Amino acid sequence: MAAAEGEPIRFGILGCATIARKVARAIHLSPNAALHAVGSRSLPKARAFAAAVASAAAAAPPRAYGSYEEVLDDPAVEAVYVPLPTALHLGWAVAAAEKGKHVLLEKPAALRVSDLDRILEVCQSNGVQFMDGSMWLHHHRTARMRQFLSDPTLFGNLRVIHSTSTFRADAVFLEHNIRVKPDLDSLGALGDLGWYGIGAILWAADYALPATATALPAPQLNQAGVLLSCGASFHWHDGKAATFHSSFLSAVSMDLSVHGSGGSLQVTDLAIPFREDRAAFESTAGAHFSELHLGWSRTPEEVAVEAPLPQEAMMVKEFAELAMGVRDGFRRPEPKWGEVTRKTQLLVDAVKTSIELGCKTVDL
Amino acid sequence: MAAAEGEPIRFGILGCATIARKVARAIHLSPNAALHAVGSRSLPKARAFAAAVASAAAAAPPRAYGSYEEVLDDPAVEAVYVPLPTALHLGWAVAAAEKGKHVLLEKPAALRVSDLDRILEVCQSNGVQFMDGSMWLHHHRTARMRQFLSDPTLFGNLRVIHSTSTFRADAVFLEHNIRVKPDLDSLGALGDLGWYGIGAILWAADYALPATATALPAPQLNQAGVLLSCGASFHWHDGKAATFHSSFLSAVSMDLSVHGSGGSLQVTDLAIPFREDRAAFESTAGAHFSELHLGWSRTPEEVAVEAPLPQEAMMVKEFAELAMGVRDGFRRPEPKWGEVTRKTQLLVDAVKTSIELGCKTVDL
Repeated sequence: MAAAEGEPIRFGILGCATIARKVARAIHLSPNAALHAVGSRSLPKARAFAAAVASAAAAAPPRAYGSYEEVLDDPAVEAVYVPLPTALHLGWAVAAAEKGKHVLLEKPAALRVSDLDRILEVCQSNGVQFMDGSMWLHHHRTARMRQFLSDPTLFGNLRVIHSTSTFRADAVFLEHNIRVKPDLDSLGALGDLGWYGIGAILWAADYALPATATALPAPQLNQAGVLLSCGASFHWHDGKAATFHSSFLSAVSMDLSVHGSGGSLQVTDLAIPFREDRAAFESTAGAHFSELHLGWSRTPEEVAVEAPLPQEAMMVKEFAELAMGVRDGFRRPEPKWGEVTRKTQLLVDAVKTSIELGCKTVDL
Repeated sequence: MAAAEGEPIRFGILGCATIARKVARAIHLSPNAALHAVGSRSLPKARAFAAAVASAAAAAPPRAYGSYEEVLDDPAVEAVYVPLPTALHLGWAVAAAEKGKHVLLEKPAALRVSDLDRILEVCQSNGVQFMDGSMWLHHHRTARMRQFLSDPTLFGNLRVIHSTSTFRADAVFLEHNIRVKPDLDSLGALGDLGWYGIGAILWAADYALPATATALPAPQLNQAGVLLSCGASFHWHDGKAATFHSSFLSAVSMDLSVHGSGGSLQVTDLAIPFREDRAAFESTAGAHFSELHLGWSRTPEEVAVEAPLPQEAMMVKEFAELAMGVRDGFRRPEPKWGEVTRKTQLLVDAVKTSIELGCKTVDL
């Protein structure tokens, strides 16, 4: 069952979550990936999922299995995508890596950094690629924004970052969704949405870890103690500062603003762009108030970026390229993605700890 | 020297600060105001200022006095604009009100709320109008934004506010400007720029005072102890939350984002619009992620507002209207503006106290 050199990476998907349909589509769209199998605890659900994604992609249906184990035991499966509830990530990501499958793990990666460390350790010792499901990191816009932030003549030194990741959950979600259940996704909005906000802050800071994390006062929790709304501020020794807010209780927002000594950047659809084929951000560089402060010397410039593939397909493509390099003997797994995930998880943990300590400052 | 009913309000200006030139222009542009006198501790400076603003407005020059007292003693002066260093506001605003002059006071209004209370008290007991110099509150855009935020079907309930007010001061400013001198403007960036951020938050919250204020960690101060960069978070009992950041160390920014349960609003040139004749904001209402989260059901809408007069002229016009109503016996001074100023000052004080307490939470 070993794939020939250069053949697409064959994916298995564990579970039939809605987001799995999005990633199944991305696997079909990605030129170097193929969807080989899907597993569910319910075989009829797996079959229905397989038929639906095949029909959506006008492709042959993947194999349907009535358990996750069977996906991992299928020797043709080279990589798995794991969109299971966060509480199940540790067990299934470790099991997949131990079977030699590359692991694409939905965010939040884990409930705590010690769980993630175990996952990363097993991936490393089994020589498989790890990546979390932060799709926006793979968008061409993200690379274009990095270019702006890295330009000392335009942006200067990073000073302040702010991000929001919110959507307004309806009553059914707030009652029944996995993401508000203490046994399945105990991080709630901090894990589901804060992962984006924290990830965006780390990305903007080029992955320099802050010195401290301080939860903002008055986080909101449901009766089971799961976070519905929270925020935090981060500070770096050089004076950089960042804040984020994540919530299931506000209208949809995906803001990132980054302020430097020379310029600033604004985007309002960071984690999920408004549309698939094109995304934009605004940048301002070298602006000052005009005479008598009657206006600005320069106004923000819209920078639009075409997207040849949706960001989730870009993610699958990059992941599959790395997996293919490992399979075909060209390279070792790329450790960068595990490091990005680990820093994000570290800050999620720190914010959670700060909240548990009554919003005390936590050193990192 | 009493003005006839309906005659323009005659202004005196105390001091020749750059911003006084902007307000002198606004007085000329406002149909119900006239610039009658300017005073400086240096008569040649007052004369040069008078000549410059007259030439800019193609109007007769105002009287030039070599002291502030002479402006207050001129019976033709009905209202004064006070752009002096903050440390001098208490003395000169009180002196002006005691002479029966209406007081338009540059922001920050005072060094502390007890000083402001004295100013407001003297204005009240002398029956004169008070207003601080927050020009943006008088822009047509601000009224249009209020309309959006007040619409329960579009915006819903207020949840989160974030604002930044920053500009990058050069070395000369950081060494010599009044706003970094402990004896003249000891509030530094908190007073000069935080006044906007805090004012914007209060405005967005429709002047509901928060329950707590907590400075963000690691404010930056100069060697004399004046704030160069700081921020804070505010929380309300109903779960609303807000953050702001103000700084002399970041590129120019004037962001306000307001998130509700149903919609959101974004503006990036709040306190000083990019241009004089037109200003815009973005609003999003009723948006949700589309199927499979491949995009958004709705994208932000740009709402552009024409400005018949620059915002500072709108401010002068509104202030002069109120002053004229008092002079001509139609009304008592409008207390609203003093209340707006007082709430802003209360939060400035609370943030300063929180910073002095090592970023402890301060109850309001």
